[in-house]
Amino acid sequence: MADPIPPVAGFRFAGVASGIKSDDKKDLGIIVADAPCTAAGVFTRNIVRAAPVEVASQRVKNGKAQAILVNSGNANACTGRRGERAVEDTTANLADALGIDKSLVLPASTGVIGVQMPMEPFSEGIPGAVEELSDHGARSFSEAILTTDRGPKVSSRAFAVGRGQGRVVAIAKGAGMIHPDMATTLAFVLTDVPVNKGFLASALKTATNRTFNCISVDGDTSTNDSIFVMASGALRQPNLTGDLSSSPDSVAFVDALTEVLGDVAQMIVADGEGAERLVEIVVRGAPSERAATDVARTIATSQLVKTAIHGCDPNWGRILAAAGRAGVKFDPLRALVAIGDAVVYERGDVATPPIEQRAAAVMKREKYRILVRLGAGRDEATYWTCDLGHEYVRINADYRT
Amino acid sequence: MADPIPPVAGFRFAGVASGIKSDDKKDLGIIVADAPCTAAGVFTRNIVRAAPVEVASQRVKNGKAQAILVNSGNANACTGRRGERAVEDTTANLADALGIDKSLVLPASTGVIGVQMPMEPFSEGIPGAVEELSDHGARSFSEAILTTDRGPKVSSRAFAVGRGQGRVVAIAKGAGMIHPDMATTLAFVLTDVPVNKGFLASALKTATNRTFNCISVDGDTSTNDSIFVMASGALRQPNLTGDLSSSPDSVAFVDALTEVLGDVAQMIVADGEGAERLVEIVVRGAPSERAATDVARTIATSQLVKTAIHGCDPNWGRILAAAGRAGVKFDPLRALVAIGDAVVYERGDVATPPIEQRAAAVMKREKYRILVRLGAGRDEATYWTCDLGHEYVRINADYRT
Repeated sequence: MADPIPPVAGFRFAGVASGIKSDDKKDLGIIVADAPCTAAGVFTRNIVRAAPVEVASQRVKNGKAQAILVNSGNANACTGRRGERAVEDTTANLADALGIDKSLVLPASTGVIGVQMPMEPFSEGIPGAVEELSDHGARSFSEAILTTDRGPKVSSRAFAVGRGQGRVVAIAKGAGMIHPDMATTLAFVLTDVPVNKGFLASALKTATNRTFNCISVDGDTSTNDSIFVMASGALRQPNLTGDLSSSPDSVAFVDALTEVLGDVAQMIVADGEGAERLVEIVVRGAPSERAATDVARTIATSQLVKTAIHGCDPNWGRILAAAGRAGVKFDPLRALVAIGDAVVYERGDVATPPIEQRAAAVMKREKYRILVRLGAGRDEATYWTCDLGHEYVRINADYRT
Repeated sequence: MADPIPPVAGFRFAGVASGIKSDDKKDLGIIVADAPCTAAGVFTRNIVRAAPVEVASQRVKNGKAQAILVNSGNANACTGRRGERAVEDTTANLADALGIDKSLVLPASTGVIGVQMPMEPFSEGIPGAVEELSDHGARSFSEAILTTDRGPKVSSRAFAVGRGQGRVVAIAKGAGMIHPDMATTLAFVLTDVPVNKGFLASALKTATNRTFNCISVDGDTSTNDSIFVMASGALRQPNLTGDLSSSPDSVAFVDALTEVLGDVAQMIVADGEGAERLVEIVVRGAPSERAATDVARTIATSQLVKTAIHGCDPNWGRILAAAGRAGVKFDPLRALVAIGDAVVYERGDVATPPIEQRAAAVMKREKYRILVRLGAGRDEATYWTCDLGHEYVRINADYRT
C-alpha cells in the first residue's frame, strides 16, 4: 500500500484513464490551483523539443500558472505544427472546463515520439478529470503520468517558515530517460509558501542544478524533460523574495525544494530500467565546482564504470581512467579512489586483495558511494548513477523487434 | 589462413611468447629498422597515462627512432616511478641487444592496469625476439600485440611516388578500448617512403583525426593508446616535406596513410567486444566540420542509438534526439535522417511502415550507413560505431567476478 501524499493547501489533483494508452491504464493527470499561482519551469536543453515544451516554456515566462495538464503514452515530439496545435487545443479545452485563461495552463507529455497526438481521449478525459479533482488526488495524478516507471515518485517536506509551517511536495516520473519511445523526466513541485516569481525561478534553477542535472542513467537527454513549480501562497506569510540566502526562511525554502527534488531524482536513477544499484559519485579536491562536476559526470556516464558497478567489480582503474579523460588537470600520483570505506587507490599505491574484497562487498549493496579525491583544489561535486546491465540492453535493444 | 603481410623495405619484425601472459600466447613484439628512421607518434589524451606513454612521447619528440618494443598482458599503467623504471630498463635491454641508443626505442604496452611489470620475461624474450627478426615477421608481430582482439588487424597500400612505388603498412590492436583491464588501442605504421620529420608528424596527426579519432566503441579512452609511424626512407626518392598538399606525392602519401589507418580503425570497431555491426555515421549540412563531428560523435556514442543498432530497430527518434543534444544549432523541421537508403525522417514527416521495414532490413547488415542532414550549413563528418549488446555487458560486468 502506497504512503498517502499529504495535501498542499491551494491545490487539487486528478488522474484518469482517457484511452491514450491502449491498456486502460491512467494516462491523463491534472493539477489545478484555487487561484493563479506564482510559477517557474526548467526544460530540456535538447534542441529537439516536443510541442508541449515549446508551449509551456513560453507560457511560464510570465511567472504565473493555475493548472498543469499532463498526458502519458504520447510525447507529442517531432510532430511539427500539428503537434503544437494539439497542445493549444487540449490546454484550451481544460481552461474552458475550469473557466480560466489557457495561458495559465502548463502542458507536459511523455510517451512515444513521432506519432500525432490523438484528440478524442482529451475530449472525454478532461471533463472526467475535472470532476474527480480533490486535494487528496495527488496519488492518482502521480500514477497517471507514469510510462515505464516501476511506480510513482513522490517526496514531501514540511518546514518552519515565519510563524507557520510550509510544505513542498514533488511528484515526478522517469525511468531515467533510458527508454526509447517512452523517454522523459517530468517533475511537478507544489508549495503553499508565498514566493515572488523571480525568487521562485532562481530557487528552481539552483535546486535543479544540484539534483536533476546531477543524475545519469545513460547520458541521453529527452525531448520532453520539464520541471514545473507552482506556489499557491495559501500559507499566509510575506512573499519570499530577493537573494536565495537573504533570510532563514528563504534558505529553508530552497533547502526543502532541493531535498524533495533530490529525493525524486534519486528515485528516478534507482528506477533506471534494469538498474539494480544507486551509486553516489563524490569528487573532491577539484580546482573548481565546474571541474568537480565534469569529473563526476564523466565517471557517472562511463560505460566501463557502469558495467563494473553491475558486476560488483572494484575495478578502480576504470574509475581513475574515466576521471583522467574529463578534461580536468590533476596528478594521478596525488589522487585517491575509495569505494565505500575501502580505499582502493591512493597516490600510486594500489589495493591489496583484502581491501579489494571489502570494496567488492560494498558494491553488493543497493546504494553506496564512490569517492575520488583529485588533490588539485578544494571544490567538490556529487552525481548519481546506476549500473548498466543486461536488462538495460534487453529493454532498449529488443523494444520494437 | 591469414593473408601474408607484404614486407616494407628497411624493417624487420618478430613476435614471441615471453611469459607475461600466463597462457603461453605471444606477448612480446619488436620492430627494428636497418638504420634510424624519421618517426612520429600520437598518444592518448587521457591525463592518466601509462609509463610507456610517458617515455615514448618524450623520445619521439626528436623525430627519430629505430626500434619499437611492445608487450601485451600488462599495461604498465598506474604503476608510478617503478613503472617508468621498468620502461627504461626493458628498452635499454633491447637497445643493448641491437647495439643502438635506447632513446631510439619506442615502448608501448597493453594489458592489465595497476600491476607492476614483471622483468624476467623481457630478459629472456628480447634475445629470442632479436634472433627471430625477419622482414617477413610482421604477421608474428601482429599476433604478439593482441589482447582480447579476435585477430590481427593489418592494412597495406602501395602507391606511385616519384618514379617508384611506395608502401605503407599499418598493424594495430584493440577491441575498441572496451575491455576493462585489457584496454588500449595501439597502431604501428611503417613506410619506405622518405619523409621530413615535420611532414610526418603533421601527416600522422591529420590521418589520425580522420580515422582513429572518429571511432567509438564505448567512449572510454585508454591510458595506453599510442600510434607510431616510422619511415625508413629505403625507397630512394627526395624527402617529402613542407605542406601536406604541396605535391602529388605528398597527397598520395597522406591518402595512403589515412587509408591504412582507416582500415585498421574500422577493424577495431568491428571487433568491439560483443559487436555484431559496424555503422558509419555520416553528418552533413553542418555549420562547421567541428559541429558535424560533434553531432556524429554524440550519435555514435549514444547508448540508446547503440542498443537500437543492436536490436535492428529503426528508431530514428533516438538518432534525432542524440543530434539535438550535441550542442549544435539546427532546425529539426529542416533535418533528414536516413538508414541505408531508407529516409525515415524528413522535415517533420515520419516514415511510413513500409519504409520502416526497409530500414529494419538495412540494419540486419553487418555494415551500413546512417545519414543525418542538419540543413544548417555545408560541412560534414564521418564517425564509426558499433552496437551495444549483451555480449558487451557480459564481458565488462562479469570479467573479474
